[in-house]
Amino acid sequence: MNGFIDFRLRPPLPGYLEAVMYTNPERRDRFTRQLGLEPAPSASQRSIAACLAEMDAAGVAVGVLPARHSDLHGSTPNSAVEAIMQQYPGRFVGLAAFDPTHRRAAIAEIDRCIAAGMRGVNIEPGAYPVPMYPDDRRLYPIYAHCEDQGLPVVLMAGGNGGPDLSYSDPIYVDRVAADFPKLPIVVSHGGWPWVHQILHVAYRRQNVYLSPDMYLCNMAGMQDYIDAANGFMQDRFIYGSAYPLAPIQQYAEWFRGLPLKPEVMHKVTFQNAARLLGLEASTR
Amino acid sequence: MNGFIDFRLRPPLPGYLEAVMYTNPERRDRFTRQLGLEPAPSASQRSIAACLAEMDAAGVAVGVLPARHSDLHGSTPNSAVEAIMQQYPGRFVGLAAFDPTHRRAAIAEIDRCIAAGMRGVNIEPGAYPVPMYPDDRRLYPIYAHCEDQGLPVVLMAGGNGGPDLSYSDPIYVDRVAADFPKLPIVVSHGGWPWVHQILHVAYRRQNVYLSPDMYLCNMAGMQDYIDAANGFMQDRFIYGSAYPLAPIQQYAEWFRGLPLKPEVMHKVTFQNAARLLGLEASTR
Amino acid sequence: MNGFIDFRLRPPLPGYLEAVMYTNPERRDRFTRQLGLEPAPSASQRSIAACLAEMDAAGVAVGVLPARHSDLHGSTPNSAVEAIMQQYPGRFVGLAAFDPTHRRAAIAEIDRCIAAGMRGVNIEPGAYPVPMYPDDRRLYPIYAHCEDQGLPVVLMAGGNGGPDLSYSDPIYVDRVAADFPKLPIVVSHGGWPWVHQILHVAYRRQNVYLSPDMYLCNMAGMQDYIDAANGFMQDRFIYGSAYPLAPIQQYAEWFRGLPLKPEVMHKVTFQNAARLLGLEASTR
Repeated sequence: MNGFIDFRLRPPLPGYLEAVMYTNPERRDRFTRQLGLEPAPSASQRSIAACLAEMDAAGVAVGVLPARHSDLHGSTPNSAVEAIMQQYPGRFVGLAAFDPTHRRAAIAEIDRCIAAGMRGVNIEPGAYPVPMYPDDRRLYPIYAHCEDQGLPVVLMAGGNGGPDLSYSDPIYVDRVAADFPKLPIVVSHGGWPWVHQILHVAYRRQNVYLSPDMYLCNMAGMQDYIDAANGFMQDRFIYGSAYPLAPIQQYAEWFRGLPLKPEVMHKVTFQNAARLLGLEASTR
Repeated sequence: MNGFIDFRLRPPLPGYLEAVMYTNPERRDRFTRQLGLEPAPSASQRSIAACLAEMDAAGVAVGVLPARHSDLHGSTPNSAVEAIMQQYPGRFVGLAAFDPTHRRAAIAEIDRCIAAGMRGVNIEPGAYPVPMYPDDRRLYPIYAHCEDQGLPVVLMAGGNGGPDLSYSDPIYVDRVAADFPKLPIVVSHGGWPWVHQILHVAYRRQNVYLSPDMYLCNMAGMQDYIDAANGFMQDRFIYGSAYPLAPIQQYAEWFRGLPLKPEVMHKVTFQNAARLLGLEASTR
Repeated sequence: MNGFIDFRLRPPLPGYLEAVMYTNPERRDRFTRQLGLEPAPSASQRSIAACLAEMDAAGVAVGVLPARHSDLHGSTPNSAVEAIMQQYPGRFVGLAAFDPTHRRAAIAEIDRCIAAGMRGVNIEPGAYPVPMYPDDRRLYPIYAHCEDQGLPVVLMAGGNGGPDLSYSDPIYVDRVAADFPKLPIVVSHGGWPWVHQILHVAYRRQNVYLSPDMYLCNMAGMQDYIDAANGFMQDRFIYGSAYPLAPIQQYAEWFRGLPLKPEVMHKVTFQNAARLLGLEASTR
């Protein structure tokens, strides 16, 4: 039995501690409680020891760390993610961020990060210093490069991930997925609240994966996500907590109680992410 | 035990009787029946005595009366609402309307109405003679004034409240709520049918209140609204019938049967509206 | 007891056999399986005999055949549909297609097809060689003609029926339905995935009919469609399989198991379509 891979986890360590999710605990904890969850002790304590203990208690073997280039939420540089990966080998897997306004430098930085052991690319268009939609033409050379190199892209489209609701509109994901049909795209925040629409996009585009993470928990449309995970999305639905927005341990316990078929539970919490990130060999 | 505050109620009295909801009973009753409800006898009879008796039987202590500036649905002038408030003291509370194309006159009229005892402002952008979206720039000076004065705004965004579906798109409410974070905004018709999307807006913006009123009843997404009312929206969900579109009494009976927690039922049917309108002292 | 009228059925015969749904069976069967259904034997075998046998076994008395003018999905000319109607009298009913870029020729062709026995017009804006939205002004003379002639229009808005998700946005159907209030519009693919939004449009516009066909089956929002079918949509909800995308027989069996009231089941699977197509006399 493998542990979970948590596809969105930002531990209390340099690079993340300076971001809004740790510098404004009141805001964060309000969002956590609105999900019907209690804030993680490790988050308030800003304690990596407590965070690792919560991962152990939750059965989370690996956390996926998104680097981030942002003003809105605060940046997490690739170097910080690399440092965490080196300090806690096997425990964390990084996703590279970049400045989308300089395409050559962005591609060079992505390649450098992958060579240094990262497993994919994190793109958060609505959170860039100049917010973009996911189909912004400035991102197209990057998507092309990732498709050509076989790199999975994690694309934030959902939740509070942009200045307003329009940034999570699934039309943009639909277009990117259609234009780069061999590019695996994991939609972090799962396109929420556009639940029906993003499930259509995933129905149509075989390269779209969904990870609604924190917004799965007691939010509108939850049952539709779960039905899809038990059905046509079982090989493309991915577990994530969005910690510290949701607590690692309570979220995992809640998730284990969902009415997913046993084989689907294993796919969603481990196999789908492991296959995408090339972790099957390294973590078994 | 307090009675209900019905946040949207248009009694059969001058000012309302000339509006489409009373002049076209066939259209009105068809919409009522589509909700699975029966038209109120008081509506067909155009009888205020019957209406007050239905309020009593329903346990509705107070009705909130929106004045309206409209061609599409017919106008209800502030003077008519004031007359009703004076004639039935304690039974009705008014919301001021205005012509959005004259900002100085609009603000003066709002202030006059508040001084005369009204408790907030009613804005129905899609129903204006020249339909607007809720984020129309002509409305921004008004929103600013209301925010500065601490006046709650009731913003119609949902249902048949504009020429077409685009007028209820929650993107507009999202932007207004973000731009005026201290302005309490009650979304009348609750953003329906954009149920998932408006619940995201309310999740993110703490100044957004929802009152789906008639569109809660047996319509698509009902369970999502109810789950939110029982959860993170319990202090920001507000009861309303939209009478005469829904019958006061049958709607209240139906609502009492909803699976809301007892403390939530009281918040939703009384406390949230009372706090917002400053009615706690006056009605207890 | 009448058999079902299947409002969207493309048999394995010339005109359909050259279209993508038959020339790319792998793609088709993947979509079928994503619905939780098994591909129809008749589809893989490309056998009209098997198809007719499946209709008999399913209790499907009549199949409605849309002609199609398309590059994306492959065209099915009116002449092919006419040939099928002649070859299998009483078993199939045709809907006329046209080239929307030549309005006079389009109207002449529609009139010719109706004179030849077709019962309505099939419009698939997103699938035209130059994709259009349903409210494209080039379609307005056609809608006007159909409204004036009392011809029902089947309008594809939903599912994979255009280059991307925007083509199924119900705002377009809303506008067309408002601008041609006497034109009966059957939305094929039922506006899916915009389930809440299209149900609002149907609530408001009395000339809108919904036939979600294949996208009803286990897809997000299914319960909302069913509740509407049991409620205010009972005279405007229409059965269809979208065969060969869904199997005629398994789909019919699945549909018979839905929690529809008995009288609603009969309306939805026969009466509503028969009334619209003028088939009541001819098939009883």
